[in-house]
Amino acid sequence: MTDKLSEFGLIAKYFVPLATHPGALALSDDAAVLKAEADHDLVMTADALTAGVHFLPDDPPNLIASKALRVNLSDLAAKGAEPVGYLLALALPQSIDDAWLAEFARGLGEDQKTFGVSLLGGDTTATPGPLTIAITAIGRVPHGTMIRRSGAKLGDHVYVSGTIGDAGAGLAILQGKVAREPDAAFLIGRYRQPTPRVSLGPKLRGFANASLDVSDGLIADLGHIAETSHVRIVVEAEAIPRSDALKSFDPDIVRAATAGDDYEIAFTASSPIPAGLPVTRIGRVEAGQGVVLLDGQGQEIAVPKAGFTHF
Amino acid sequence: MTDKLSEFGLIAKYFVPLATHPGALALSDDAAVLKAEADHDLVMTADALTAGVHFLPDDPPNLIASKALRVNLSDLAAKGAEPVGYLLALALPQSIDDAWLAEFARGLGEDQKTFGVSLLGGDTTATPGPLTIAITAIGRVPHGTMIRRSGAKLGDHVYVSGTIGDAGAGLAILQGKVAREPDAAFLIGRYRQPTPRVSLGPKLRGFANASLDVSDGLIADLGHIAETSHVRIVVEAEAIPRSDALKSFDPDIVRAATAGDDYEIAFTASSPIPAGLPVTRIGRVEAGQGVVLLDGQGQEIAVPKAGFTHF
Repeated sequence: MTDKLSEFGLIAKYFVPLATHPGALALSDDAAVLKAEADHDLVMTADALTAGVHFLPDDPPNLIASKALRVNLSDLAAKGAEPVGYLLALALPQSIDDAWLAEFARGLGEDQKTFGVSLLGGDTTATPGPLTIAITAIGRVPHGTMIRRSGAKLGDHVYVSGTIGDAGAGLAILQGKVAREPDAAFLIGRYRQPTPRVSLGPKLRGFANASLDVSDGLIADLGHIAETSHVRIVVEAEAIPRSDALKSFDPDIVRAATAGDDYEIAFTASSPIPAGLPVTRIGRVEAGQGVVLLDGQGQEIAVPKAGFTHF
Repeated sequence: MTDKLSEFGLIAKYFVPLATHPGALALSDDAAVLKAEADHDLVMTADALTAGVHFLPDDPPNLIASKALRVNLSDLAAKGAEPVGYLLALALPQSIDDAWLAEFARGLGEDQKTFGVSLLGGDTTATPGPLTIAITAIGRVPHGTMIRRSGAKLGDHVYVSGTIGDAGAGLAILQGKVAREPDAAFLIGRYRQPTPRVSLGPKLRGFANASLDVSDGLIADLGHIAETSHVRIVVEAEAIPRSDALKSFDPDIVRAATAGDDYEIAFTASSPIPAGLPVTRIGRVEAGQGVVLLDGQGQEIAVPKAGFTHF
């Protein structure tokens, strides 16, 4: 850690300005306080990122901050929740200096404005190991409207937001595979700074029967819906939305459907869904179990590895 | 990490059984959900512990788990809140095996029963660095009754629960200083497994004007009340409650009052306070600023270092 600032000093300088919610008490207390809203539920999720595992230590600090926050906002959105704020536990190695922290805080501050959230509290400690960022994000839904993974129904159609596979290609490029500009910049950006579907998520309440965010890979995550809903999900490979940049870098649809870090929302719903939602229909829910990927002739495509785990 | 269990496997085996709250959804979803209670506030706090900084890597895993949970429950208690549950972000090094995780989960499970809380959610990842445990704890208070740091009033008396300085002595013993048994075991136990004042905390609502938990050292933490309340706090050194074990190991009162990790509650209140509270009056609130420690003759005792920071 910087030797110019104590723990209290760096909190005052970089983090108190981010504590815009009155319940954060300007980080001057042991805890944050949120008034319960009648007929609402609070939705809570925690995700941690570690340097060398989830991002590269020399990634731009504002983008590291942004990704750490966004992966949590993505979970809230997939549950249909509006985000309120987050608590941040930072374990900082000695190598982190003032300039790094200033950029890290800038990244958080910009995203706070974009997504309408506030820092609510947290903890900052030193570590002899890599930078670790643990965020707990808090959102809200009208009582009983959080969208579960387990609600998929027979006959539902399956939808996904955005495009799939970009982030996995971006990571491959960062690891040394070559792509043409401007495709490379686009794909790397999708890996480094995903776009949580914060405005889409709450619009899904009331008609989406099951939902989650795609972080482990589309097929693996649809597998979570299939498993908890006791159904089988059939995906039409050619319907999976892919960016032009991805198709030009890597046309392999299985790689796209099994790469991680998309942070799109996948959900199931009985037809018809409201007009104007920026989502693509990719499949259907049937009796059975597991996830099946079909080609244009209706033949099953082998999926060698059901997604991504950190181990 | 163990190569016998995937992330999903270890969550199912060790953590799903800890998710006893219905809102935890058996850890089968992206988020936990808590129904808002009319006329209540939610209180939220986050504290992270890193191996080699906050505990020793070869400390017993059940005690590491217990301490990580208890330091968060201590913050809730000091705010007058009843604990509800917690989210757990674990960054696990390769060296962690199945037996370690089983003991870690056992420590959490025992404390969950003792303190009436549930695991609500979390995240488990691999790290090339030391074990890091980030917990966000959630509690509840009737609306508007959370006890702030900033409410101390002129003329208040100052109180503290339990005994002060034990944990600091326990750490000194672990670092090689010698104490007689059974004092050593008692003092080490106070360091490794603090006792959050979970039943005392809610009893302070309504009459405590300011409160916090003593983690950085009694004098430093009272300094936080003095600063945020714009008052001066005068502490009578001889009134500070100390265990017999501590007095026999180290009679130095300044060391006791500046050591960290007590996890007792310090609060201020107008007299009289309710009968039967297990607390000791140690001082008073005056006009001015800062914290002053007085000896039996009313002379100021120099405090060389205003407590403990992690940097």
